Amino acid sequence: MEQNREFFMKMAIELSRDGMDQGKGGPFGCVIVKNGKVIGKGSNSVSLTNDPTAHAEMVAIRDACKNLGHFQLEDCELYTSCEPCPMCLGAIYWARPSKVFYANSKKDAAEIGFDDDFIYQEIELPLEKRKIPFEQISQNEAKKVFKDWLKKENKNLY
Amino acid sequence: MEQNREFFMKMAIELSRDGMDQGKGGPFGCVIVKNGKVIGKGSNSVSLTNDPTAHAEMVAIRDACKNLGHFQLEDCELYTSCEPCPMCLGAIYWARPSKVFYANSKKDAAEIGFDDDFIYQEIELPLEKRKIPFEQISQNEAKKVFKDWLKKENKNLY
Repeated sequence: MEQNREFFMKMAIELSRDGMDQGKGGPFGCVIVKNGKVIGKGSNSVSLTNDPTAHAEMVAIRDACKNLGHFQLEDCELYTSCEPCPMCLGAIYWARPSKVFYANSKKDAAEIGFDDDFIYQEIELPLEKRKIPFEQISQNEAKKVFKDWLKKENKNLY
Repeated sequence: MEQNREFFMKMAIELSRDGMDQGKGGPFGCVIVKNGKVIGKGSNSVSLTNDPTAHAEMVAIRDACKNLGHFQLEDCELYTSCEPCPMCLGAIYWARPSKVFYANSKKDAAEIGFDDDFIYQEIELPLEKRKIPFEQISQNEAKKVFKDWLKKENKNLY
């Protein structure tokens, strides 16, 4: 079991190196495993795809969900070469794998110039103190749609 | 200027309704604007695409970046029909629009069953106290790739 963990993490680390070497993006890789089988994988592809959301974990989660035909990663383990940023952490909670293994820490990432800590700090701030200003408008209009959601029948809950 | 804001938010709210009516996912929409022009938009499409990351903001950010051919939303405004979840908030910080307008609040979302607050709470917890367990393995192996990233020439920073 311990050996399996190292094996799958090695795959994630290899994906981090491959992505870096191929100029896809930063040195990050991720593998998702269900019942001992890899069902999704990804390298950071921000530079290649001009997609700021294409972190390794996001790419792997999207790949795994596509392969499973489901938006939940029930009974899956996620192996990421680095501790997730807040975006990827949020995605992990929406996808709900049973466990996350990571190798490099947030501190290791900050040391090579990927400072997720700034975002972690911003999340905890009240809206009016954030570096990107957040302003609420049109709440009444938007709330009508929420009320109609409650009344809607046959909705898919996720 | 104030009128423009209401106009673009109305578009985001219409996208939230369209997505709901078409069964794409939850009642959430988003529009991204640069120099008074819509350059990206999205409805929540989690149910349609089986992609747990397909929140309205993520879909709109990916659309806008594709259209701009760039992973940064410089000088862009993001209009979302609801205050972003932690995943989308992280994506917003990576994409760096200049301002975010939102209509429904997190509290409004929780009232119709979308409880992002659980994820906000988990983010603040130390790894060992989270509902999804996080375990660090193979740090030394992964760190080798990080060291090679520092040595790499001609890298794309994002």
